[in-house]
Amino acid sequence: MTQKAVILLSGGLDSATALAAARADGFECHTLAVDYGQRHRSELNASQKVSKAGGAKTHKEIKMDLAAFGGSSLTDDSLAVSDYDAQSTQVPLTYVPARNTIFLSIALAFAEVVGAQALYIGVTAVDYSGYPDCRQEFIDAFERLANLGTVAAVEEGRLLKVKTPLIDLSKAEIIQLGTKLGVDYALTVSCYQADDQGRACGRCDSCHHRKMGFKEAGLSDPTRYQ
Amino acid sequence: MTQKAVILLSGGLDSATALAAARADGFECHTLAVDYGQRHRSELNASQKVSKAGGAKTHKEIKMDLAAFGGSSLTDDSLAVSDYDAQSTQVPLTYVPARNTIFLSIALAFAEVVGAQALYIGVTAVDYSGYPDCRQEFIDAFERLANLGTVAAVEEGRLLKVKTPLIDLSKAEIIQLGTKLGVDYALTVSCYQADDQGRACGRCDSCHHRKMGFKEAGLSDPTRYQ
Repeated sequence: MTQKAVILLSGGLDSATALAAARADGFECHTLAVDYGQRHRSELNASQKVSKAGGAKTHKEIKMDLAAFGGSSLTDDSLAVSDYDAQSTQVPLTYVPARNTIFLSIALAFAEVVGAQALYIGVTAVDYSGYPDCRQEFIDAFERLANLGTVAAVEEGRLLKVKTPLIDLSKAEIIQLGTKLGVDYALTVSCYQADDQGRACGRCDSCHHRKMGFKEAGLSDPTRYQ
Repeated sequence: MTQKAVILLSGGLDSATALAAARADGFECHTLAVDYGQRHRSELNASQKVSKAGGAKTHKEIKMDLAAFGGSSLTDDSLAVSDYDAQSTQVPLTYVPARNTIFLSIALAFAEVVGAQALYIGVTAVDYSGYPDCRQEFIDAFERLANLGTVAAVEEGRLLKVKTPLIDLSKAEIIQLGTKLGVDYALTVSCYQADDQGRACGRCDSCHHRKMGFKEAGLSDPTRYQ
């Protein structure tokens, strides 16, 4: 029987590559996007397109209002997204409290409903940017929690594996891997403040890392800029 | 400085008692209700009233569409809530996949935003009903995850304690504790299929445990039935 995987798919470069990795690992893929009140809808549109192009069997979008908490420039219109600053050592304002914990929890529910054996998340500790929930130690703690908290695991012995195929890769290595696996990066949106056509600002942290990634990978950058 | 706590407040008997326990522990209380597509709004209305009566400083309601996953009779209109069955050893259909994992994750985000040191959840392992995410082992794994996943904990050393004041109490003991702490149980709604005035069906698992609880506690039951 084909094994199933749930893939957290934001519409960005990393999660598109995680989907390709799950397919390469032989899983039937079910992608999940979370509409958490991010500023732009283009990220969610990108997620749909990437899911289809990446050969996922189903795509689901779950709405939840993280913006109601405030505290992040990704969901709070009163906070500006700052330009890339190589000197900065602070956790950026783009940090959304407990975002990966929440996303993984929702993906866990989805995994139990579809009967998935694996959950893929495209976190990377290399371009870590000060997000503590992108580290392998955190992911391991989540896997442990997941296998204590579901009926599938506790009563039926169906354990869930949380996979992080990008955790040790630099942005350039992620792009090289995805290119080898046939990812169409023109469909992906990484920018923190893309316009509604999905065109990038070219100035934020995320744009900076993406641009450098294509450069270091020695591959042409298909990103559309505003 | 007053320490703050976030309390997951469903509007039911258990979480109302957890709020009273947090107040008795000296915390400034911030309550959180999750609108996850449960069948009736009366639970959320009860949560608001319980928060106010329980002396919480703020109350927040977060909307998320768990019903989109299906798989539980609490969110899926096509599945019937079954009557209490003393012989049943199965996990009931009222199980919502990964519900406590999701609720705790959202509460974790809220705790980071308000700067809380504690998070209260009214789980009880005694009337456990086959929900694996009501066990202390699961809660401990979540606390560990929480303190690996937030900037507050990892960068600033502000650890979060997850408190389960009811974990070892029977329903009767919970009611006795809450009564001592001044909880007005007439405001709470436990029924899985309460009507829009918050009146209980008197037949489901949850109604059964609540009714028996008041009886064993030797206290009069203020529940309003349909």
